[in-house]
Amino acid sequence: MRGNLSSVFDSELYSSLFTHPEMKKVWSDENLIRCWLEFEMAVASVQAELDIIPAQAAKEIVTTCQSLDIDWQRLATETRSVGMAIKPLVDQITDAGTPLVKKYLHWGCTTQDLLDSALAMRIKQTLLLVRGQLIELGEHLKAMALAHKATVMVARTNSVDASATTWGLQVSSYLSELTRHIHRLDNLYPTAITGLFGGAVGNLASVGHNGIETRNNLMKALGLSAPIGMMNASQDNVVQVIQFFALVHGTLCRIANDVETMGRPSLGELREGEGGGGSSTMPHKTNPRASNMIQTLSRMGWMYASGATNLLDQQDVRAASMRVLNWTLLPESALSLSTSLDRASRLINHLVVDKERMNDNFNTSKYFIMSESVSMKLADKIGRDQGYHIMKKLLNTADGTQNLEQLVLNNTQIREFLSEEELITACDPSSYLGCNDTLVDETVAFFDSTDKFNKVSI
Amino acid sequence: MRGNLSSVFDSELYSSLFTHPEMKKVWSDENLIRCWLEFEMAVASVQAELDIIPAQAAKEIVTTCQSLDIDWQRLATETRSVGMAIKPLVDQITDAGTPLVKKYLHWGCTTQDLLDSALAMRIKQTLLLVRGQLIELGEHLKAMALAHKATVMVARTNSVDASATTWGLQVSSYLSELTRHIHRLDNLYPTAITGLFGGAVGNLASVGHNGIETRNNLMKALGLSAPIGMMNASQDNVVQVIQFFALVHGTLCRIANDVETMGRPSLGELREGEGGGGSSTMPHKTNPRASNMIQTLSRMGWMYASGATNLLDQQDVRAASMRVLNWTLLPESALSLSTSLDRASRLINHLVVDKERMNDNFNTSKYFIMSESVSMKLADKIGRDQGYHIMKKLLNTADGTQNLEQLVLNNTQIREFLSEEELITACDPSSYLGCNDTLVDETVAFFDSTDKFNKVSI
Amino acid sequence: MRGNLSSVFDSELYSSLFTHPEMKKVWSDENLIRCWLEFEMAVASVQAELDIIPAQAAKEIVTTCQSLDIDWQRLATETRSVGMAIKPLVDQITDAGTPLVKKYLHWGCTTQDLLDSALAMRIKQTLLLVRGQLIELGEHLKAMALAHKATVMVARTNSVDASATTWGLQVSSYLSELTRHIHRLDNLYPTAITGLFGGAVGNLASVGHNGIETRNNLMKALGLSAPIGMMNASQDNVVQVIQFFALVHGTLCRIANDVETMGRPSLGELREGEGGGGSSTMPHKTNPRASNMIQTLSRMGWMYASGATNLLDQQDVRAASMRVLNWTLLPESALSLSTSLDRASRLINHLVVDKERMNDNFNTSKYFIMSESVSMKLADKIGRDQGYHIMKKLLNTADGTQNLEQLVLNNTQIREFLSEEELITACDPSSYLGCNDTLVDETVAFFDSTDKFNKVSI
Amino acid sequence: MRGNLSSVFDSELYSSLFTHPEMKKVWSDENLIRCWLEFEMAVASVQAELDIIPAQAAKEIVTTCQSLDIDWQRLATETRSVGMAIKPLVDQITDAGTPLVKKYLHWGCTTQDLLDSALAMRIKQTLLLVRGQLIELGEHLKAMALAHKATVMVARTNSVDASATTWGLQVSSYLSELTRHIHRLDNLYPTAITGLFGGAVGNLASVGHNGIETRNNLMKALGLSAPIGMMNASQDNVVQVIQFFALVHGTLCRIANDVETMGRPSLGELREGEGGGGSSTMPHKTNPRASNMIQTLSRMGWMYASGATNLLDQQDVRAASMRVLNWTLLPESALSLSTSLDRASRLINHLVVDKERMNDNFNTSKYFIMSESVSMKLADKIGRDQGYHIMKKLLNTADGTQNLEQLVLNNTQIREFLSEEELITACDPSSYLGCNDTLVDETVAFFDSTDKFNKVSI
Repeated sequence: MRGNLSSVFDSELYSSLFTHPEMKKVWSDENLIRCWLEFEMAVASVQAELDIIPAQAAKEIVTTCQSLDIDWQRLATETRSVGMAIKPLVDQITDAGTPLVKKYLHWGCTTQDLLDSALAMRIKQTLLLVRGQLIELGEHLKAMALAHKATVMVARTNSVDASATTWGLQVSSYLSELTRHIHRLDNLYPTAITGLFGGAVGNLASVGHNGIETRNNLMKALGLSAPIGMMNASQDNVVQVIQFFALVHGTLCRIANDVETMGRPSLGELREGEGGGGSSTMPHKTNPRASNMIQTLSRMGWMYASGATNLLDQQDVRAASMRVLNWTLLPESALSLSTSLDRASRLINHLVVDKERMNDNFNTSKYFIMSESVSMKLADKIGRDQGYHIMKKLLNTADGTQNLEQLVLNNTQIREFLSEEELITACDPSSYLGCNDTLVDETVAFFDSTDKFNKVSI
Repeated sequence: MRGNLSSVFDSELYSSLFTHPEMKKVWSDENLIRCWLEFEMAVASVQAELDIIPAQAAKEIVTTCQSLDIDWQRLATETRSVGMAIKPLVDQITDAGTPLVKKYLHWGCTTQDLLDSALAMRIKQTLLLVRGQLIELGEHLKAMALAHKATVMVARTNSVDASATTWGLQVSSYLSELTRHIHRLDNLYPTAITGLFGGAVGNLASVGHNGIETRNNLMKALGLSAPIGMMNASQDNVVQVIQFFALVHGTLCRIANDVETMGRPSLGELREGEGGGGSSTMPHKTNPRASNMIQTLSRMGWMYASGATNLLDQQDVRAASMRVLNWTLLPESALSLSTSLDRASRLINHLVVDKERMNDNFNTSKYFIMSESVSMKLADKIGRDQGYHIMKKLLNTADGTQNLEQLVLNNTQIREFLSEEELITACDPSSYLGCNDTLVDETVAFFDSTDKFNKVSI
Repeated sequence: MRGNLSSVFDSELYSSLFTHPEMKKVWSDENLIRCWLEFEMAVASVQAELDIIPAQAAKEIVTTCQSLDIDWQRLATETRSVGMAIKPLVDQITDAGTPLVKKYLHWGCTTQDLLDSALAMRIKQTLLLVRGQLIELGEHLKAMALAHKATVMVARTNSVDASATTWGLQVSSYLSELTRHIHRLDNLYPTAITGLFGGAVGNLASVGHNGIETRNNLMKALGLSAPIGMMNASQDNVVQVIQFFALVHGTLCRIANDVETMGRPSLGELREGEGGGGSSTMPHKTNPRASNMIQTLSRMGWMYASGATNLLDQQDVRAASMRVLNWTLLPESALSLSTSLDRASRLINHLVVDKERMNDNFNTSKYFIMSESVSMKLADKIGRDQGYHIMKKLLNTADGTQNLEQLVLNNTQIREFLSEEELITACDPSSYLGCNDTLVDETVAFFDSTDKFNKVSI
Repeated sequence: MRGNLSSVFDSELYSSLFTHPEMKKVWSDENLIRCWLEFEMAVASVQAELDIIPAQAAKEIVTTCQSLDIDWQRLATETRSVGMAIKPLVDQITDAGTPLVKKYLHWGCTTQDLLDSALAMRIKQTLLLVRGQLIELGEHLKAMALAHKATVMVARTNSVDASATTWGLQVSSYLSELTRHIHRLDNLYPTAITGLFGGAVGNLASVGHNGIETRNNLMKALGLSAPIGMMNASQDNVVQVIQFFALVHGTLCRIANDVETMGRPSLGELREGEGGGGSSTMPHKTNPRASNMIQTLSRMGWMYASGATNLLDQQDVRAASMRVLNWTLLPESALSLSTSLDRASRLINHLVVDKERMNDNFNTSKYFIMSESVSMKLADKIGRDQGYHIMKKLLNTADGTQNLEQLVLNNTQIREFLSEEELITACDPSSYLGCNDTLVDETVAFFDSTDKFNKVSI
């Protein structure tokens, strides 16, 4: 039946606004089951190699898992009853298997080993996908930063016009954060993909002899990092991933905030270029839908990060209650981030930059925002303190009929220290950009020094 | 295809553990569309009554909406492009409609009017469902509190054995909270179901004449409260609902905490009675799955409440970014709460109370926890301060071979003030329950004084 | 020594920016001690009246408490050692007291009774203060809403110019929320001021005979509501207060957001009028410090609300761990809110409204934002759907040289249905304000219907 | 006056429970001012070296800053008025300075440069302090893990007795997390101590020539990392620190949870050994105050992390509102963490481990928790599936009069496959510890491979 779904991630109406197709596959039921089956196959193969179970048993387990025709209805019903889906799945494999399968399947394993290792497998898939998205967005930002290195615009601080800057420098500031995020990802990647294999209480007692070797070989087979010591109650690696996602959302949200603000009709410096966002009632109006969705998704990402610390409230060898939060926090936070990254890439890629409006907006304040520029020129002659006060006084008494250039040229006190040419230059935004180009360049170099190949194994 | 869903609320594996069937219907795509159609029909009917649009137009709008065969694929595609689903739906109705429908559908409405009113309609359905669940759980708690009014057990504070209490009194303490929750629900209900009808910028300009009357009649037709003044940017009523849910989770979590703790094998006073929770590897073990799921769901509910305040970060007449959080916060928080309430009702209903173990557990401390009881008897004779110190000294020097009764009977200093009979009584837990019965009774009376009929309109 | 404090609430540098003097008194150490002493005096007096302790003992306890010269150093040292401050304080009173004091002080009480009742006493003081602040801010808002009922300005939605509205209506929308907050406060007040008196494990066993009567008389003496049943583990009433504060912050944040946005030089419609906010380097610049601080304080308030739900994670008769969160959450959340309310009152009171700029800003879009107005006039003649599309097409083909009035007057298709006069009117913002005045008036009436006397007992 | 403070971090009553003396110094007003003065001195010296300002000016600026007698009252008053403390401080230095000081102080700087660099300086001090505390706690954990490598105890999962483990292994699991935290700290350290020097809008325009060189030399002089590109709006490095603190709290909370649970009288396996925690009314009772405080502090730390993401909600070159959150989030989160680390170190150092009770507690379940051990032995002979079911059936029919050993020895089906000796061994907890020793050893080696010298510059 149509229309029975309720989460924005699965809803037929809303899913496309909250999910990224590849990421949705990573966190689908299907991939979950696939990871569990992969675990069962791998553990059997590894145990066979170490002569813990017969080679034939491993072979038959692999065959059974590969050809398993899952009874979803039964799986759902039994999961509801048991509270976890592992035993129900193991039961289906067992039922479908040969006597050797029945005997050696899930040997020495416990539910948590599968849950946590499959989680690590999907976190790995997630991080690789996110890394690719970060690099893609980075390339768009780099291109824009370089293209607009000399696009002068009003610099604003605390939402007030402050001085002059360039759009390229502002864009490079996103790139600087984004490059740090790539480094963060690479730093946390090895621990984030730590699997688990410890048996019922984490000491590998149920695994029989060769416990450590089994564990290490299994992790290698699954492409995961091996745990160090007993990590059953430890959720720090998982929480760190969700916290990291929250940091990335920060950069995306900042991009969205700027696009929204600079796109306000009163500024009109930027415009989302991808289309969409029409009003159902106001014909003239286009809403900044991409920015708004990115802002929404960032709050979702931050919320998940705030919920994630609950995972750390563990006790004993392990506690189920908090751990189950994984089931919802990881999919939702991964989906939100990848959706937002995708949307941000498209936003930057299609962004319409109105250089003319950027230039015109200096007029709003009659170029008064160049006052620091004049003030610093004065400071060179008479000191910072006095330069500041002369300008402050001048601006306080301005009646609004003249712009800054006119005001300072007509001020006899200032003219004592600065020539007409010096003053005209000081009032020109493009003359007061400081180290603009070097800052953009060092940021681009920082990004370029990052390994951009998204190797399967970073 | 099977297995492509990713959220625990819709996942074929997990949905049953995180949703309550009736609540899932409330927050399904289907009900969302139904509420929007209901809004379009109601607004047309109300406008026809007020001679704003022709009666025939309203009639044809109703007919078209009722017989609309939704093209879900097109709806999804256009929603992705527009960013909101209202215009795509209005377009489908328009396309399916007569010339009069095309002319008068969605008259003076704006997307937000539909979004927010449909939200209020579903919040109403949610609160009514939750109220029924609260009362159901309350009845179970009441029954258990009365049944165990005299079931003596160790009272624990800060996880240390403290004195004597009854299981009935502890249960009544849940009921006291729960009754307050019902009152809270009744208090916030009228504002929580406030709809919206204000046109593009909230001042009803697009609605034409009779704006206020249209608004009020529409709200009446939809069973909603009318807004007071211009409320387009106001999300306080919605946030309050999610905050309220968080408070209810507190009570459920407390029940789960106690069941889990008192169910630890070392105490063994309670046991979940519903079945499930078997270990995939340890044959002797049954996990407290209901308690653990309730604990998990409470963290989800608290997380949603922490995310909900973002909704308040509004500006101008309204801002889309934060408002879209509604789409995910409301369904997820409503589903989590109703699932947890359902699970808690079943938990209490099937709970196995082991009175014998409750009694035996006084032995753990050799009845030392009755020390306050003796101390207070001493205090009656020689003052609180001195009584406390005599007992403190006695307990500090005890070697663990005697229980409290033996110790105090053999203590000459104490025997100066208290007789053998007085001391034996003081060491008996059931003699030191204070106002136990009155406290249980006043709580039950508090619950019983609450209106238990779950009228459609409270 | 100067400069050794570290919290913004006590820091010599920052305290004035984060605290409100009266509220700081409420949450000072001194008031805390005062409330505890008041509790000890009241419980003794009540117990004497009920013949539980000798009248002379109560008299001497009162005298000792009233004249107690606290040894702060000892109190701090012992609190550090014990982990709670009650026993150390009781010890000081005992030491200073007569034999009767030593004998009957703290009779049947437990640490929690004092902690929670003193908390309720300070919550009461807090709510009364906050209520007064809400009314004060409400009066400012009311005055401004009425004064600017006809001050036409651009209405913006999703940060895009949308249509016309008035500043008075926008201000009234704050007042509508604020009035609901007053009602919320009045609703939660009776439970928020619930004290505690239950003895060691909440059943009044240690209190001796007349437990319930003692409890009720004590609460009456302290001006608190009596608990219903056993509420030792219940923190719902406290959490609700912090959640409520978060809702109020929402309104203040919304005011600050609007002042900040409308104060951007590109709009220039509002300006903070209280002074301050100068830049240390840019002479022309004034920062919206009040708005920014209110925004900061709102995040603090929302953060406290997110932390507060942890208080609900209780177990057994009570658990200390989460409860201690009270000690920091309540003071910080009360201080943040009262500071923000105070700042918002001053902000509104001194706000500079630039009607001229508000009017000029319609030119930014060449009055295109009046397109809905024309569109609705067309709809009257030819239906909503067709009216919308004619305008959409017209605006899409506009080259920016003409304003809306010129465009529509020159459009032959439109002129078929609407006269010159009708079109000129439709392009005039003040003609398209819908139910503006009624909406402002109903909001003011809503506020005025609220009891504005801040009686000691609401 | 005594008693006028209100925050738990400064309160005379509570400060000692919520602060660590060295950390409090780091976040005191005094150190803040000291860092700002250090910045002003360093920037002048660096600028003199680069011939931006006269050498004599730098010399006099240093002298003035070093001998400055701060007028705290004036500083507080002006900070309240300006909203930031930098200009007021600069004014005091200027007033106290020579003409050259007045002329060249604060040259090209902006308020944010000082705020953010001083923040980085204090974050550096904080991280070095925390690193030392982590190593100290690690040493205690290592010693305990090794000492109790063979201390057999009941392993519990989901709060139910599960199988056998050792206290040493459990302790090593804390050490594994803690070692990862040290690595995390070392990873984030270089970016966490990034200072800021960009002038009014971040492009170093106001700094004059040699902007980048000035910036880099200044950062070197201050012991900070230089920013890469324009980082004025970037708060990711700061948020990451607070998120990291939250992860550390997770480990501490887990320790506290286990001490509290295992210290419940019904288990009695652990006991806090430091004293304190007495009840004011129950003579026999000692509360686990250290554990409870650690649990409380962890919630505070998690709350700060949830609030910290707001810092990322930036716009333009920078926005003051969210940034001011720094002023409260950093001190409070640093103080909470260091207090908790200190308390955890003392807790572990004084922890009383009752090996006898640990052993006795196997009796609670009549050794039934060894069922997996027997089950796995059976599995070796007849397969996992069948072994599990034989044991499940046996346990289901047990009447509670016999322990596991007796049951299995008497079961003919089991005796077919396992000898008496095999069964007796299987029922012995110490025979079923798997890779216990290797797991402990690899964890200790992991910790030992970490650089333990807390060099001033890591």
